[in-house]
Amino acid sequence: MTAPLRRGRRPGAPDTRAAILAAARQHFAAQGFRRTTIRAVAGDAGVDPALVHHYFGTKDDLFVAALELPIDPRSVIGPALAGGIDGAAERLLTVFLGVWDDPELRPGLLGVVRSALEPEGQRLIREGFLPAVILPAALALGVDQPERRMPLVASQIFGLILVRYILEVEPLASMSAADVVATIAPNIQRYFEMPLP
Amino acid sequence: MTAPLRRGRRPGAPDTRAAILAAARQHFAAQGFRRTTIRAVAGDAGVDPALVHHYFGTKDDLFVAALELPIDPRSVIGPALAGGIDGAAERLLTVFLGVWDDPELRPGLLGVVRSALEPEGQRLIREGFLPAVILPAALALGVDQPERRMPLVASQIFGLILVRYILEVEPLASMSAADVVATIAPNIQRYFEMPLP
Repeated sequence: MTAPLRRGRRPGAPDTRAAILAAARQHFAAQGFRRTTIRAVAGDAGVDPALVHHYFGTKDDLFVAALELPIDPRSVIGPALAGGIDGAAERLLTVFLGVWDDPELRPGLLGVVRSALEPEGQRLIREGFLPAVILPAALALGVDQPERRMPLVASQIFGLILVRYILEVEPLASMSAADVVATIAPNIQRYFEMPLP
Repeated sequence: MTAPLRRGRRPGAPDTRAAILAAARQHFAAQGFRRTTIRAVAGDAGVDPALVHHYFGTKDDLFVAALELPIDPRSVIGPALAGGIDGAAERLLTVFLGVWDDPELRPGLLGVVRSALEPEGQRLIREGFLPAVILPAALALGVDQPERRMPLVASQIFGLILVRYILEVEPLASMSAADVVATIAPNIQRYFEMPLP
């Protein structure tokens, strides 16, 4: 007798999990990341705050879960930037292209980008994704004024997403990952290291 | 007796103009810029091709009209790049910020960007805006392989639009135009001049 297949749904009450995620998305979008509390999300979902922690971990974790990303960006960005400033842009862009060039992950990522361009999603990115995911990574890198460098790095990376994966402009859309890194990483590295005005 | 006020609508039959523009948008989106002909657009609109030329000029002009941009990009991009390669990125970014920072032009530009992110709009950008507007400008600049440099330049400029004007990420959203130029123009200049892989 074989064990029944796990269907990829975590144990527990799926309705409760979904209610917490819906409440979290609503709070993060309406109030931004900083002003959203686990307590308020729990209240809206009609559960105890301890249950939110039990299911989702920290507020950072809840935020990443609410984004419904196909991959936790902290699992790739953190290690890429952990090696220090030398070559940081090259490592960051290499893991980034590895994720985006994966045909299984691409559709989910495109969905996230599309919703990020709607007004609620814009706030999730600006007040959630950047401070909760990108800023800690930049802080770990040890550069000065990471909060001023982060939007510059984001401008090049978001623009690359747009031209390579959404508009699919050739030859950038079909260029090998190695050539993309060789072409674009020096510009991102400059944003990490340049003296700011 | 005073002359009646002009209401900003050109003389001629507005329904005919609208029908031509609708047919043009449909053709550019479905077939791309290169394969769209004035003759086919005229046929769909039920008018003589000469009337399309009379109202809109060349196919390039018709394309720009179909985009319904608040400003003809060729009127600012061309002069900025006409001065040669030295300082080209700085001049390009300066006129670009002048247009986008204008509160009267911004809403129309944001509308264009939003529609550019829908599937039909993506094709208009990829097969129309880039080859009809950006590529001739890059050719005028006299750089080698402009068709390979153009998507790189576009990636940084589109990313800047996204972070400064759509996501409004601080401090980039409120930074002075002069500081944005000082920070970002050297990266665009590198895309104009770097040896390509």
